[in-house]
Amino acid sequence: MIALPEGLPGKIEIKEAAIKIKPYINRTLILQSSTLNRITGAELFFKCENFQKAGAFKTRGAINAVFSLPVEKIKCGLCTHSSGNHAAALSRAADLRGIPAFIVMPDNSSRVKIDAVKEYGGLITFCKPTLAARESTLENVKKASGAIEIHPYNNVRIITGQATAALEIIEDTEKIDIMMAPVGGGGLLSGTALSCHYFSPHIKVIAAEPEMANDAYKSFISKTFVPSENPNTIADGLLTSLGTLTFPIIMNYVHDIVTVSENSIIQAMRLVWERMKIIIEPSSAVPLAAILENKVDVKGKRVAIIISGGNVDLEKLPW
Amino acid sequence: MIALPEGLPGKIEIKEAAIKIKPYINRTLILQSSTLNRITGAELFFKCENFQKAGAFKTRGAINAVFSLPVEKIKCGLCTHSSGNHAAALSRAADLRGIPAFIVMPDNSSRVKIDAVKEYGGLITFCKPTLAARESTLENVKKASGAIEIHPYNNVRIITGQATAALEIIEDTEKIDIMMAPVGGGGLLSGTALSCHYFSPHIKVIAAEPEMANDAYKSFISKTFVPSENPNTIADGLLTSLGTLTFPIIMNYVHDIVTVSENSIIQAMRLVWERMKIIIEPSSAVPLAAILENKVDVKGKRVAIIISGGNVDLEKLPW
Repeated sequence: MIALPEGLPGKIEIKEAAIKIKPYINRTLILQSSTLNRITGAELFFKCENFQKAGAFKTRGAINAVFSLPVEKIKCGLCTHSSGNHAAALSRAADLRGIPAFIVMPDNSSRVKIDAVKEYGGLITFCKPTLAARESTLENVKKASGAIEIHPYNNVRIITGQATAALEIIEDTEKIDIMMAPVGGGGLLSGTALSCHYFSPHIKVIAAEPEMANDAYKSFISKTFVPSENPNTIADGLLTSLGTLTFPIIMNYVHDIVTVSENSIIQAMRLVWERMKIIIEPSSAVPLAAILENKVDVKGKRVAIIISGGNVDLEKLPW
Repeated sequence: MIALPEGLPGKIEIKEAAIKIKPYINRTLILQSSTLNRITGAELFFKCENFQKAGAFKTRGAINAVFSLPVEKIKCGLCTHSSGNHAAALSRAADLRGIPAFIVMPDNSSRVKIDAVKEYGGLITFCKPTLAARESTLENVKKASGAIEIHPYNNVRIITGQATAALEIIEDTEKIDIMMAPVGGGGLLSGTALSCHYFSPHIKVIAAEPEMANDAYKSFISKTFVPSENPNTIADGLLTSLGTLTFPIIMNYVHDIVTVSENSIIQAMRLVWERMKIIIEPSSAVPLAAILENKVDVKGKRVAIIISGGNVDLEKLPW
């Protein structure tokens, strides 16, 4: 067994996070689709974090992290490197506390993501699109500003915030058999697994990951941390490696990780757009893709799926 | 004053229709968006008929019409000509009653619309894309099959069914000042105006129409029926002329009709996709386009907007 790190949230910390973030987030809808139930033979419950503030679950963790820090500590602002939803969520959280957010973004980030950060007042420093450039640029920004770094997933308060999505599912539904989430860095998945463990331990937590970015799957199978190397998937929220916090939580509390093809992700995404009439980003389609590929036995089961976000560049659709 | 036709539904008929169709429709959500409220200075309530069965409000009227007819009368089936949402809704309603639906569709109808009709078991006869060809082909189908025609909007039971969307808004919200719907043939608008007149008469009913298909606007201003001639709009649900039932209802109970540019329709549609993360068809964006063009004074008001449908060809988006 892989040892859990110290300082993980318990039941009380997750419940307290839910209360803390409540004024600043949407309690998102859980939608069902009779067509998708018919196709899959299951009863599916889609937790619509695409309807979350800033368009993704990342808002939960960012708000919890930012509102947990004393004002003296963050008076110089916050910083992170991110090309995605964490950048916008952190910018919004900082804006709500009246402090600056310094965001290091690769210069190939999409217009939509850049606009979202700017809209919430985030101050962008562009860098080359490599991890080395992102980290060295962030170091420079940190030194120049005195800002506190908020990591997108390897941060206890971030994980605790993300755990509130599963908590809401457990509160708002009955008798869920399986809960599914996509896995990238593992913040959402860790929080989901912790909430199920504490609040509804009979639920099986199953993660889905693109075959083309299958580092979490490899880590899970080998029980050894495997970094993400040259990931190449349309699911742009799932490119990162697990962290020192998320890897052991996943090893202890997640029941399975399955992988899916790029084609399945696109088909699943399109199915949700066409049938449910909601806009989800590719990363959000990965769990449904796993069901459609018969990688998860859902027949006759009640399955909650966390739709992680809905931030898509409408000019670059994959069909 | 233009005289109302006889046989229009009263309060009781609309309430009865709501009960009759209940098992076969979704009571659709009413969504709000803090971003759109901020942009418009109003409090907007979006009635999401894009989440309706078969993806559009047309299901309400079709179910009410089909389930109001005695089985002896419809044993040879139902028929209509339609390139759009009425075709799918009627096919589904016929299927639920176990009778055939004969649908005359122009041979340039979109793949998505054709697939929807087929999925619900509708039997398609293709024809040339002219009104003359549609009508003559429908006559042939009618003679050959003995099927009963269900007109998409100029039918009292269709209008009564469409009226249930506004009834639900009135039941599920408080103190609406303005209710907006798009206008094509006027079935949705007539039903909306009747429900507001009966159940919440202080609500102002305002319709929005594309400038490029402004026959209802011209009819409303001139107080004389003006047919739709060479309409040319992306809002493909709004191409038709008003009917002998819908025109007088609109003249009596609608407070205003405003028109919008094609560009505004596309911008409004995109705004809803990007900000609300829901898929709406171009016709559904027309009322919001009118607000964004400042054609309707909504500042500080509570405004309900009926999102008419969400059936879009995802391969032919207007941006």
